[in-house]
Amino acid sequence: MKQVAIGIDIGGTNTAIGIVDRDGNILYEKQPQVPTPQKKDNPKGSEIISEELLNDFVTLLAVEIKSAIDVVSKINPEIGVMGIGIGAPNGNYYSGTIEHAPNLPFVGVIPFAKMIQSKFPEIKTVKLTNDANAAALGELIFGGGKGMKNFVMITIGTGLGSGLIVNGDLVYGHDGFAGEIGHTTIGRGTRTCGCGGTGHLEAYCSATGMKRTVYELLAKYNDTQSELASIPFNDMNSKIVFDAAERGDKLAKEVFEVTGQLLGEALADTVHHLSPEAIFLFGGPVAAGDYIFKPTKESMERFLLPIFRNKVKILPSSLKMGSVAIMGAGALVWKELEKQGL
Amino acid sequence: MKQVAIGIDIGGTNTAIGIVDRDGNILYEKQPQVPTPQKKDNPKGSEIISEELLNDFVTLLAVEIKSAIDVVSKINPEIGVMGIGIGAPNGNYYSGTIEHAPNLPFVGVIPFAKMIQSKFPEIKTVKLTNDANAAALGELIFGGGKGMKNFVMITIGTGLGSGLIVNGDLVYGHDGFAGEIGHTTIGRGTRTCGCGGTGHLEAYCSATGMKRTVYELLAKYNDTQSELASIPFNDMNSKIVFDAAERGDKLAKEVFEVTGQLLGEALADTVHHLSPEAIFLFGGPVAAGDYIFKPTKESMERFLLPIFRNKVKILPSSLKMGSVAIMGAGALVWKELEKQGL
Repeated sequence: MKQVAIGIDIGGTNTAIGIVDRDGNILYEKQPQVPTPQKKDNPKGSEIISEELLNDFVTLLAVEIKSAIDVVSKINPEIGVMGIGIGAPNGNYYSGTIEHAPNLPFVGVIPFAKMIQSKFPEIKTVKLTNDANAAALGELIFGGGKGMKNFVMITIGTGLGSGLIVNGDLVYGHDGFAGEIGHTTIGRGTRTCGCGGTGHLEAYCSATGMKRTVYELLAKYNDTQSELASIPFNDMNSKIVFDAAERGDKLAKEVFEVTGQLLGEALADTVHHLSPEAIFLFGGPVAAGDYIFKPTKESMERFLLPIFRNKVKILPSSLKMGSVAIMGAGALVWKELEKQGL
Repeated sequence: MKQVAIGIDIGGTNTAIGIVDRDGNILYEKQPQVPTPQKKDNPKGSEIISEELLNDFVTLLAVEIKSAIDVVSKINPEIGVMGIGIGAPNGNYYSGTIEHAPNLPFVGVIPFAKMIQSKFPEIKTVKLTNDANAAALGELIFGGGKGMKNFVMITIGTGLGSGLIVNGDLVYGHDGFAGEIGHTTIGRGTRTCGCGGTGHLEAYCSATGMKRTVYELLAKYNDTQSELASIPFNDMNSKIVFDAAERGDKLAKEVFEVTGQLLGEALADTVHHLSPEAIFLFGGPVAAGDYIFKPTKESMERFLLPIFRNKVKILPSSLKMGSVAIMGAGALVWKELEKQGL
């Protein structure tokens, strides 16, 4: 029998569904992805509408999962589906619930894993966590974290997510929600964060944060020469900043410097907590390579206690942008089976 | 057979030696404590002198351990010594070494656990970690953390130490030195820290930090009315500040407010990492009760993501000031046996 896991990742816009084997090969990936129900479909947060949207969504996912299994079974009739892993915003590993997710139209605490499970009574393992935690498990089971016992995964996108591996397992904490480094407070912090807080790391060190830094620096220097000065706020992204830096744009380079300095400062605090072997960076801005890695590393070292200096590697994630969602969710299943000794 | 553990705690001035059973009863405690070799005995950091001081110290400890076992054996001939636990500054759990401890006269990396082990070949388990980690294990095995899987221990004394319990075990990290929350950087941080860093938590939230805050506030307000204004810097301690607060001294109360606010802010970051069930505070300033707990709790809640609010308890440690050192070191042995299924 060839063991496979179903991986599902519920994103703000789309939901990815795929099948991954124990070596990290993706055997199937639903294309196009399934649209995730939108907040605008339930703007007043009605519980009745929430329930309808939710039931329809779960039914649709179940159909897609079945069809995915069918497709893969036709190629390899020997497959055995060992479990379903789900990455979801505000996903609680212990209870399998999605709780008050700010970007989903579902109201309150949703027993999502149980709902999926009920559609597949023959599949014993259905587990759920947030996407950054799933990505950390992907790195642990399939990626650069293989064989490591202690590392940290940082996912940089619209926000900054994190997953912490301690003693070879993910840290879920008491309530299932551990690993929110993006909402730690950094020194100079005056920016408002998406969560309502102030000065959070994610408000600086994310694609959105970099965009904000572009305009903060333009305002600071009144820099009319930077090529970024001719681009509206709403059109800016980290790829544009990278391309400008590659062409020698001074301000664009400083955006990476500032972002790296603050990220390094925050990561030093993480090292002071956990003393990991490595910190993996994942996401769009990470493609900028040394522009972001160099200032991050330098700043982290500067803030570290001597005892931790030159010990902690900062590495690019070895997971691919397009496949991390499914591989992370699939890894959640494999980690679960490993814990059960299977 | 009555199982007992030897607990040793190497402090800056004295070293405690005791015997503790599996229920946390201290059956013996060496009084007076053994003097710890002092840096002034090896002011130039000579390796030869370091080795002499070290050998003499280990020999002395071995004599004291043997005599402790003798005393307890006379009362209860059935005792079986299951292990030796050692709390030491810059103690590395994995290697059993004391590494570059700034307050000890020993130079370099000292294989301390191995040296003690060689004196007692019949005792199989000899383990070493730093004092705050040992205290966290004491709280886990004997104290308020019993039955908890995820909590944080903060020890407030001259500095600020911490021990992190995740998934029921202590976090040692990749190199054995995890849990240095005292050296995370806090927002307004401009003070120099004992480690050479700037703006570290320990420079504010410790007995020393509170002392510094007294004089910072006296300078800020030019407050000649506070009773603290008549006490020299070198005579100040947190007990004096507490007594003044009890008598209604406004500035003394503000010292606790400021200390708690900064501690709460830092603890919020720890919660964002680990989402613990509880945070235990231990040490002299903790005796001030609400003066310190209230602002700490309020500030932590203010900085937390909504998902973590009103979930994390801040509790006084249930370990006693006088016995924590030996109980922590003893707990290190019991935790080790538990891991081995003994």
